[in-house]
Amino acid sequence: MDAISVIRAKRDGHPLSDEQIDWVIDAYTRGAVADEQMSALAMAILLNGMTRAEIARWTAAMIASGERMDFSSLARPTADKHSTGGVGDKITLPLAPLVAACGAAVPQLSGRGLGHTGGTLDKLESIPGWRASLSNAEMLGILDSAGAVVCAAGDGLAPADKKLYALRDVTGTVEAIPLIASSIMSKKIAEGTGSLVLDVKVGSGAFMKTVEDARELASTMVGLGTDHGVRTVALLTDMSTPLGRTAGNALEVRESVEVLAGGGPADVVELTLALAREMLAAAGLPDADPAKALADGSAMDVWRRMIAAQGGDPDADLPVAREQHVVTAPTSGVLTSLDAYAVGVAAWRLGAGRARKEDPVQAGAGVELHAKPGERVEAGAPLMTLHTDTPEKFDYALAALDDAFALGDTAVDVPASVVLERIA
Amino acid sequence: MDAISVIRAKRDGHPLSDEQIDWVIDAYTRGAVADEQMSALAMAILLNGMTRAEIARWTAAMIASGERMDFSSLARPTADKHSTGGVGDKITLPLAPLVAACGAAVPQLSGRGLGHTGGTLDKLESIPGWRASLSNAEMLGILDSAGAVVCAAGDGLAPADKKLYALRDVTGTVEAIPLIASSIMSKKIAEGTGSLVLDVKVGSGAFMKTVEDARELASTMVGLGTDHGVRTVALLTDMSTPLGRTAGNALEVRESVEVLAGGGPADVVELTLALAREMLAAAGLPDADPAKALADGSAMDVWRRMIAAQGGDPDADLPVAREQHVVTAPTSGVLTSLDAYAVGVAAWRLGAGRARKEDPVQAGAGVELHAKPGERVEAGAPLMTLHTDTPEKFDYALAALDDAFALGDTAVDVPASVVLERIA
Repeated sequence: MDAISVIRAKRDGHPLSDEQIDWVIDAYTRGAVADEQMSALAMAILLNGMTRAEIARWTAAMIASGERMDFSSLARPTADKHSTGGVGDKITLPLAPLVAACGAAVPQLSGRGLGHTGGTLDKLESIPGWRASLSNAEMLGILDSAGAVVCAAGDGLAPADKKLYALRDVTGTVEAIPLIASSIMSKKIAEGTGSLVLDVKVGSGAFMKTVEDARELASTMVGLGTDHGVRTVALLTDMSTPLGRTAGNALEVRESVEVLAGGGPADVVELTLALAREMLAAAGLPDADPAKALADGSAMDVWRRMIAAQGGDPDADLPVAREQHVVTAPTSGVLTSLDAYAVGVAAWRLGAGRARKEDPVQAGAGVELHAKPGERVEAGAPLMTLHTDTPEKFDYALAALDDAFALGDTAVDVPASVVLERIA
Repeated sequence: MDAISVIRAKRDGHPLSDEQIDWVIDAYTRGAVADEQMSALAMAILLNGMTRAEIARWTAAMIASGERMDFSSLARPTADKHSTGGVGDKITLPLAPLVAACGAAVPQLSGRGLGHTGGTLDKLESIPGWRASLSNAEMLGILDSAGAVVCAAGDGLAPADKKLYALRDVTGTVEAIPLIASSIMSKKIAEGTGSLVLDVKVGSGAFMKTVEDARELASTMVGLGTDHGVRTVALLTDMSTPLGRTAGNALEVRESVEVLAGGGPADVVELTLALAREMLAAAGLPDADPAKALADGSAMDVWRRMIAAQGGDPDADLPVAREQHVVTAPTSGVLTSLDAYAVGVAAWRLGAGRARKEDPVQAGAGVELHAKPGERVEAGAPLMTLHTDTPEKFDYALAALDDAFALGDTAVDVPASVVLERIA
């Protein structure tokens, strides 16, 4: 077995054998297959595809590259959620404590933002004192005491994926459905959750721009989870416009706390409840009532315990950016569109995101939206507020917003739900 | 400009702009684009192709990555030849002195063997004392005094190609026509020859397995040469069976000297003369008579001067392998086929070639053919003799020859000429 013959096979359109997949993942993890060989293979996979059988074996090989966690000692059933990433997607923050308040255990291994999409860990780190890194024992302890935990994945989980993800990021090979699906699912399966709900984003602010691509990714992942004994369901949800009214770390924490307090934007509340119901059903708790747990404050109680257990102060003031710039409506009219990607890029440029993994983020930076599609605004009224500690970036952020929104004369049809489709 | 955007453009099927090509070649040469990024780009080029305009710019950028040589101080016109590589292809050895004997100057920058194809420098190094590395000044001096020089390309010539070639070799991206064409032509154009004849091999022993692929490669290279003011012609020639009756370093030198002495196998003589006529015509010497220069010993005189000028002893005994093994005909009949690739692999395994660039080769190793397609053999008569210093390799070499030849009852049509097509 050698790297060149594996690369050539995929390059020439042949399916890889189980032996080829097992060998190349193991050899890459050990360093016996070089980065320049794996990147050529990743490009061949992106362009020539993989069969379902190949994706399943690739995922299994990545799981086998590291340790597997085990939550069977917990008294409650486990339920996890994964989002493919979007703009203003703070759903994990209210969702994890809400589902825990309804009786499931929620072990939520999360990531950091890269590019125009935010990262859950970056958002929570805007809470003074909160820390993302936990040992496996700490994680289990918090899961047991608080019912939910949101933290970084340990180094032992799917190390092949960790290495391959970093490589794909710099070699233009991120957007391959077989590689996205196996990357997400290898971590989730190794993590040991009993059930999993996937939030597959579709639209300008998502990696998947079309419903067809999103559907293929979703059904690939549902198949992988099911094959490994994880009850898996996917919702395709709209990411053509930002979720909620904020994009940025502390801004999104504030909005999430509003939701936990029983308020918050309608689309965030709707998606939080839809995902909560799917997670509870998959965890064998179909009779739980998440709307009640939001209303009666029990979800907020779990949030406070969960934040405090990781060193955070749930009562602390959240950071506020040093400078603000208000974008006003040039004319009166109905906001007919507000592009998720443009808002994501603007928030990123203001300092909410990072260009390279090692860059810091600004806790207070981001974009606050004063109108959502379908709402009427008057000429001169505020449309968005930009927040940053580095005001010299305002012009650069504003450039991203040039064609971000449109104002029209008449009312527009706004979709009734952010949930487009369910795949199980 | 950044590597990821260039990779993505080619990955998504777009032509690269002049600025993208110039930037990526320069940045890769400087080390600002990483190997893993260039290999992903090379795979995308292999699978998505390049337009003629892209290939031209890519070639120009590789030329611009290093120095250019200048032969304008020579009294004679320059003519060079390049073969895309085959089994038993020793043509450069008789051809360079022959064309020089007819009045052209022949600056022949050559390479080493890799895989199943032999390398001209490896062959000449079997002559005691001969050395491949020359300074530019030495090269010009020998060209002036002997008329022909065969040596290694200096490090200053197209360094981008040197780096990219080594990378392609380990990443399964060798077989891309745009990359093969630009690699060959960037070196030949930077070398500064006034005219160039390309010997594009077709068949099992060649990189191009079909006439269509060979034709595309040939016309791409002819276009590149012409655009850069180099008079360029290509011959497509058969490589389904080995050239001549030897494959291996010293074995091929011996056969080349036979040709220079007026003898040698008919196919080697035919191709040597065909290429010589093309080179002389392209160099503006259409009235020269290479057949006469072979017959009257003037080509042999140039050979002796050329070898001696690089430290070699043209009268020295050539190395002979320590062990021989004779393969006999299992039945009587006409040899209907003798596969070039199988013979090339056998010679390689016997020690004539190398698996990695840094491996040594055996001067005496190789395969000697006692019959060529169309010839009759009797049962038990010798068909080939295998030569090696490492007799433990006989079985491994014999395994490559399992299906290498076929014996039939009746005469077969052997093509009248090894030259299949001419492209100018």
